[in-house]
Amino acid sequence: MEKYLNEYALLETGCAMGIAHRMAKKQREISVAEFFEKNKQILGFDSLTKALVVSVKEAVDNSLDACEEAEILPDIYVEIQNVSKDEYKIIVEDNGPGIIRRNIPLVFGKLLYGSRFHAIRQSRGQQGIGISAVVLYGQLTTGKPTRVISKIKEEEVAYEVLLTIDTKKNEPRVIKEIPKIWDREQGTRIEISIRARYVRGKQSVYEYLQQTAIVNPHAQITFVEPDGKKTIFKRATDKLPPPTREIKPHPHGIELGELLNMARNTKTYRLTSFLTNEFSRVSPKITEEICKKAYLYGDMRPQELSIEEAKRLLEAFKKVKLMAPPTDCLSPIGETLIKKGLKNVLGSLRPSFYAQPVTRTPKVYSGNPFVVEVGLVYGGELPKDQPVRILRFANRVPLLYQQGACVTTKAISSVDWRRYGLEQRGGQGIPVGPAIILVHVASTRVPFTSEAKEAIADVPEIREEIELALKSLGRQLRLYNVKKERKSKMTEKFFLVNKLLPEIARKSAEIVEKPIPPLEPVISKIMNVVWIDESVEKEEDKIKVNVRVANFTSKHQKFVLYGDYPLGNLIDTDGIAEEDYVKWDVDIEPVSYRHFYFTLKDADKYGETNYYVEGISPNIVIGAEPLPGDWNIKLSEIEEIVEDEDMENGEDVEEEFEVIDDE
Amino acid sequence: MEKYLNEYALLETGCAMGIAHRMAKKQREISVAEFFEKNKQILGFDSLTKALVVSVKEAVDNSLDACEEAEILPDIYVEIQNVSKDEYKIIVEDNGPGIIRRNIPLVFGKLLYGSRFHAIRQSRGQQGIGISAVVLYGQLTTGKPTRVISKIKEEEVAYEVLLTIDTKKNEPRVIKEIPKIWDREQGTRIEISIRARYVRGKQSVYEYLQQTAIVNPHAQITFVEPDGKKTIFKRATDKLPPPTREIKPHPHGIELGELLNMARNTKTYRLTSFLTNEFSRVSPKITEEICKKAYLYGDMRPQELSIEEAKRLLEAFKKVKLMAPPTDCLSPIGETLIKKGLKNVLGSLRPSFYAQPVTRTPKVYSGNPFVVEVGLVYGGELPKDQPVRILRFANRVPLLYQQGACVTTKAISSVDWRRYGLEQRGGQGIPVGPAIILVHVASTRVPFTSEAKEAIADVPEIREEIELALKSLGRQLRLYNVKKERKSKMTEKFFLVNKLLPEIARKSAEIVEKPIPPLEPVISKIMNVVWIDESVEKEEDKIKVNVRVANFTSKHQKFVLYGDYPLGNLIDTDGIAEEDYVKWDVDIEPVSYRHFYFTLKDADKYGETNYYVEGISPNIVIGAEPLPGDWNIKLSEIEEIVEDEDMENGEDVEEEFEVIDDE
Repeated sequence: MEKYLNEYALLETGCAMGIAHRMAKKQREISVAEFFEKNKQILGFDSLTKALVVSVKEAVDNSLDACEEAEILPDIYVEIQNVSKDEYKIIVEDNGPGIIRRNIPLVFGKLLYGSRFHAIRQSRGQQGIGISAVVLYGQLTTGKPTRVISKIKEEEVAYEVLLTIDTKKNEPRVIKEIPKIWDREQGTRIEISIRARYVRGKQSVYEYLQQTAIVNPHAQITFVEPDGKKTIFKRATDKLPPPTREIKPHPHGIELGELLNMARNTKTYRLTSFLTNEFSRVSPKITEEICKKAYLYGDMRPQELSIEEAKRLLEAFKKVKLMAPPTDCLSPIGETLIKKGLKNVLGSLRPSFYAQPVTRTPKVYSGNPFVVEVGLVYGGELPKDQPVRILRFANRVPLLYQQGACVTTKAISSVDWRRYGLEQRGGQGIPVGPAIILVHVASTRVPFTSEAKEAIADVPEIREEIELALKSLGRQLRLYNVKKERKSKMTEKFFLVNKLLPEIARKSAEIVEKPIPPLEPVISKIMNVVWIDESVEKEEDKIKVNVRVANFTSKHQKFVLYGDYPLGNLIDTDGIAEEDYVKWDVDIEPVSYRHFYFTLKDADKYGETNYYVEGISPNIVIGAEPLPGDWNIKLSEIEEIVEDEDMENGEDVEEEFEVIDDE
Repeated sequence: MEKYLNEYALLETGCAMGIAHRMAKKQREISVAEFFEKNKQILGFDSLTKALVVSVKEAVDNSLDACEEAEILPDIYVEIQNVSKDEYKIIVEDNGPGIIRRNIPLVFGKLLYGSRFHAIRQSRGQQGIGISAVVLYGQLTTGKPTRVISKIKEEEVAYEVLLTIDTKKNEPRVIKEIPKIWDREQGTRIEISIRARYVRGKQSVYEYLQQTAIVNPHAQITFVEPDGKKTIFKRATDKLPPPTREIKPHPHGIELGELLNMARNTKTYRLTSFLTNEFSRVSPKITEEICKKAYLYGDMRPQELSIEEAKRLLEAFKKVKLMAPPTDCLSPIGETLIKKGLKNVLGSLRPSFYAQPVTRTPKVYSGNPFVVEVGLVYGGELPKDQPVRILRFANRVPLLYQQGACVTTKAISSVDWRRYGLEQRGGQGIPVGPAIILVHVASTRVPFTSEAKEAIADVPEIREEIELALKSLGRQLRLYNVKKERKSKMTEKFFLVNKLLPEIARKSAEIVEKPIPPLEPVISKIMNVVWIDESVEKEEDKIKVNVRVANFTSKHQKFVLYGDYPLGNLIDTDGIAEEDYVKWDVDIEPVSYRHFYFTLKDADKYGETNYYVEGISPNIVIGAEPLPGDWNIKLSEIEEIVEDEDMENGEDVEEEFEVIDDE
């Protein structure tokens, strides 16, 4: 419309056309699709390898969101086919609720169209850009349309739509739409051809799916790579995460303009009901208090709020005591999954210290609730001379790119890690040392730095929360290091006492011409520890680990001892062999020793076993840590199953989708 | 429109409403203004201090672009007023061509509206988002409308428009529009109130304007800070940078979809004329070659190009020899300004080495020409134990934020600087050492990572160019370090020869019973250098620097010697004292010495002076570098003039704008 207006204006003054008019001639509206066609890097399409990960990510995020919203356990099929050099076809199919026929073109063929933009609750997609951006990138780089098949429960048939985006108008252009028999009750399948490059390893589709599976254990994800290799990331739990509930805006951090907008558009007639009904955590009692502090008459019409009055309201919001926003709009990963996430990237590396993950209480930025979770592992076989590895998640989605731009990285860089035992030049920057740090930010609106959703913006409130959480991890790390030092000092003391005391006793006995008294009680009194250490005997291709427990306390001790040995190598033990650890019930008299053992095969690179104790005060134990609750959860539950692509399986897959390929 | 379609679809099936229908009910179009209102961090508004810089930047970038396009020497007035706690009013006024009345609301009140989006040439604004985003942020945070006054030459009066953005529609909402007498011939003034915080120092409005002035020496920028302090960044040259010319797309790097789009929309009738007319650097001869290599009939209608045929065309583009894109669409900063930019941040610090800036030849990414320029200074008083400082520019605009996300930083991090003499852990990451690196990327379309235009995306072609340019700087740095080492070895040799030779001569003369021969010619032959060194005498609060020049060559030498002493401290010299250096005309016989001096006051922290020579082969000079051409350009030319705000000045300013404030 404005374009014509503009040209009309030109006609008016067209004769004596000065520079301002010449420039005006060029001024015109830009469609959002045109904008992104020319700025595809903003959507994350700035390299061929990244384009593939971004595309799969958008499709899978959509599928997960749709399933969860419909309270369906997600079952997602991802396939990547190599069409020709640098051209790949991405297929993503889900068992979600499907999309009604009329909306299919809009959901996939129009940017800035979506259902979750206005809802205040945690979800992966919020912008209404993601998947249509992939469609746009596909047609830009391969010239090919996108195929969508979707079926909803209420309809007999699915609909297959072939579409592109009319970039000048940002409208879908449907090439073909036909009903189709599909043997799914409901679901959506999308097939997009894009210019891309397939890689394995770091920052790959595989890594993205694996990390996604870990923090979404309720989802089953099947992945078929271009060479036909099929991996199933199996569902680890049949329990859906509690559904996130949509909430009203929280008064903290809301902008003046937003408040004015809300007040102008409200259907309420009085300021009091406006505040009570349209905000979360504002009770009638608090409303009264707010009005009083803002010097406003509670019965006034909210539509008549002036800028000055709105400002006073905002000030009053800060002065009253408001509860934190409800947390059921958020879905944190939780301790267990944070640990799993960390354990997964560790592979066969075994750290010596696992910090207890920290989940902060929810806070608010610009009216949006958010929660920060962090985890850390340290030591052991992790590389000592490299920057710590950072794992980032936002709303249960792994972030693989733009680490340098992310508030998580900035928070990590601004903590002085030297005081917690990591190396860090000048107390700033990413610390160096044997550690992995995981950070998850969950929010009803994650403030991404761009539409590519690769990094979280440096919002002061979020940064502060991450820093506080990290410092709490840091204190744990320092404590661990203090304890380690204490152990080494204790060792010194132990040997001194054990050497000197008998000598002194012998001499003294000699002098006073009396028999040597029993020393153990004295030593125990001095030491007051339960001592656990190991010694290793090599026997050909296996090694025997001898575990010694010494009770240098004056009390009888009864506890459980766990040995977290390298996985899959155990061949013998006098303890109870569990799937990935050995367990002993220890029952030991004061001033006495007990000996245990376990034998490992193929243990060339054996470093040391981590010991844990349960049922004894960890303060008196040297050489073992308290059992970290749910640490030894079975990782195998969500471990991927890699199938060799044999003919039968291949056919199975083919068959299921044959209907679709048949045009 | 789609919204209604959607709701209509709902009515059809409304009775038995399943989950897919319930979800469909929420699906709707999102206006781009709504999108950014909820995602203001994407526009750079993620902290209060940053919001101010971003807002000024968008307004000033617009003013510079408008002036340059109209070939007017920019004269820009920037004022920041503190309205109340955390509320500031930004005023930016220029002498540009103005905006025609009808377009004012659209330019400032509609996102994705602009004149430079489709033009392939270098400009600051390209997105049509910047200034309307500031208007949006202003109304969101203060509830206040934006005031624009603009006058074009052809009109008698200016128009004043008070406007906000209707975010639901992304359309301007004009509150008031009145004609106004304005004593400017042409120009635009904008006044926006925003929530912000004012700071000085790093990443401030001041820093942004200062750096902008340096790389845009044709612009005069007046800046009035909230406390009334007025700084004028004076125009250093009356020469506008050569106007950038709009070009056609270059075939290299163009996407398949773009090619197909161009072919479908062309007004040409034959493939040959399509290629020749609509691409840059494609001559009729090359067109013939392309068609042959693509197995395409030159007379075919381009509108009928199939995907397969377009693919063959793209392949053929790569196979023929195409000239690099024309460079007159780009406007590099150039050597002199790179040096000025570096010198400016140095302040009173004096590095010992200035690398010769490197400007690469233009290259192409995705059809967009770009050019990379880099500069480096090293050593002297720059801090040795900190990461190198990075100065980033894109299309002559300083980039102050998101350093970690920028391709410039990634390129710097991936060069192994250890081989060039900087410290770097593992040969990766930002190197540590006494250096400042400047990188400028100029392009017809800078691929920013987001609409905030704070960082350049990691586009492989751009990264490679930056890396190559940096390595070339690195080699200069290594050479400098090699020379430094050579000097120290030469010193050793010099003293050895000077000590041993006379001794040997004495002994030999004794043995053969002859007089000692004159040794200087022999020493000169061995050394063949002109030796320059200094010694320092302290005298109370001043120091005297004695400069010794020794001609250990067999020839008469005549050259100019420059001493780049710490600024502003000179009190006496036997040379010619220039504003910021001392100069001696040296005329020296073979095998002889000359002595010079200069005296400095308050030189407690005196380190050493850098010496430069002119008119002598630098290869035979030890202790001085060749004069780096235009290095000693007068910085003061573009140095800011800080005026104390006295009453008179204040009134002057007031008066000029009185008309405007008078409603």
